[in-house]
Amino acid sequence: FIDSKRAARWRRESKEHFRMMSDENTIIIDCQKDSTSVPSVPDPGHATVELADANDRDHKLLAQAVEEAYIGVECGDGRPFGAVIVHNNEIVVSCHNMVLKNKDPTAHAEIIAIREACKKLNKIKLSECEIYASCEPCPMCFGAIHLSRLKRLVYGAKAEAAVAIGFNSIIADGVSGIGCYHKSNLEIIKLDASIAEQVFQNTKGKFNL
Amino acid sequence: FIDSKRAARWRRESKEHFRMMSDENTIIIDCQKDSTSVPSVPDPGHATVELADANDRDHKLLAQAVEEAYIGVECGDGRPFGAVIVHNNEIVVSCHNMVLKNKDPTAHAEIIAIREACKKLNKIKLSECEIYASCEPCPMCFGAIHLSRLKRLVYGAKAEAAVAIGFNSIIADGVSGIGCYHKSNLEIIKLDASIAEQVFQNTKGKFNL
Repeated sequence: FIDSKRAARWRRESKEHFRMMSDENTIIIDCQKDSTSVPSVPDPGHATVELADANDRDHKLLAQAVEEAYIGVECGDGRPFGAVIVHNNEIVVSCHNMVLKNKDPTAHAEIIAIREACKKLNKIKLSECEIYASCEPCPMCFGAIHLSRLKRLVYGAKAEAAVAIGFNSIIADGVSGIGCYHKSNLEIIKLDASIAEQVFQNTKGKFNL
Repeated sequence: FIDSKRAARWRRESKEHFRMMSDENTIIIDCQKDSTSVPSVPDPGHATVELADANDRDHKLLAQAVEEAYIGVECGDGRPFGAVIVHNNEIVVSCHNMVLKNKDPTAHAEIIAIREACKKLNKIKLSECEIYASCEPCPMCFGAIHLSRLKRLVYGAKAEAAVAIGFNSIIADGVSGIGCYHKSNLEIIKLDASIAEQVFQNTKGKFNL
């Protein structure tokens, strides 16, 4: 189930992107290229993130979402976007964009993560969970985050950085654009994380738009 | 697979809602309460809608989406929303909200329809297809419609009619609200179809919000 060799190689190759992940043992990564199911559910025994500093915690979990973005491209599953859902400091799911693999335009990382988290927790509302997204969610994903009642969204890259390399400009309407974010009680945090924007440049040419 | 007895009963019981469907034989309805897959893919041999008048065609296909909304509630699958995707006058998929059945807050009728149509047509872009939605799509669904490149959206009930009976007010931001619709090349048609708004009153009490 977990292709640890591949994950180790990928982690080694891309370690320059994850300078912030000082304690790699807290997160298990897999890359299920040959699986039809959703990628990268960490081993529950290793998924607890224990950090005294909340901001350090946010950066660590965002780095996991960013790593998912790289893994998704490396696997050929989709575009460079990742999302992690956390419940009580425990990673519930860690997913990436599956648009190409699933031939499904709705299979953005956040949508996959919400669907899988609901399945895993057997809940229709994720009101006790937080979502970490490598990039600002598009309106579809922002709508899903709102509808699933997630209590907190932390994201890294600005939508504009994705638009700049050719992604659909509608993405910029989810949170920072003219979208519907103001109706939500969701706590929204934009982290200052250059690793999240570097994903686009670093993976350019490895996926088709 | 097709529970035709149940569908026939339901069609009989609800026929007052479908006065516009003068030629019922063009559309096959099923109600897969016990199936884990997506509902109501009409028999391809019967799915062609041949109408000289485009507006009549639109009303007929919208009526199918509305019927799906009733079926979804009757089956206990979800809330009263239906969607139909059409390619070259042929119904590709006919789906309803599966939020309750799938315990998935993203399982709106439009999302289910897009995912299933992509699967059925083996395409990631539905640029030659149209979508008929019983109600104005929420931002999540509108985003999915945009991202899937559907060329035309026809909807019935105003989002406000859904909000009035208790649905999340975010729904009103997809098309008529402050949403991102202006960025889309999509042709958007709001049909004047009271049958679409009657669904909410007629099913009230049969589903939980």
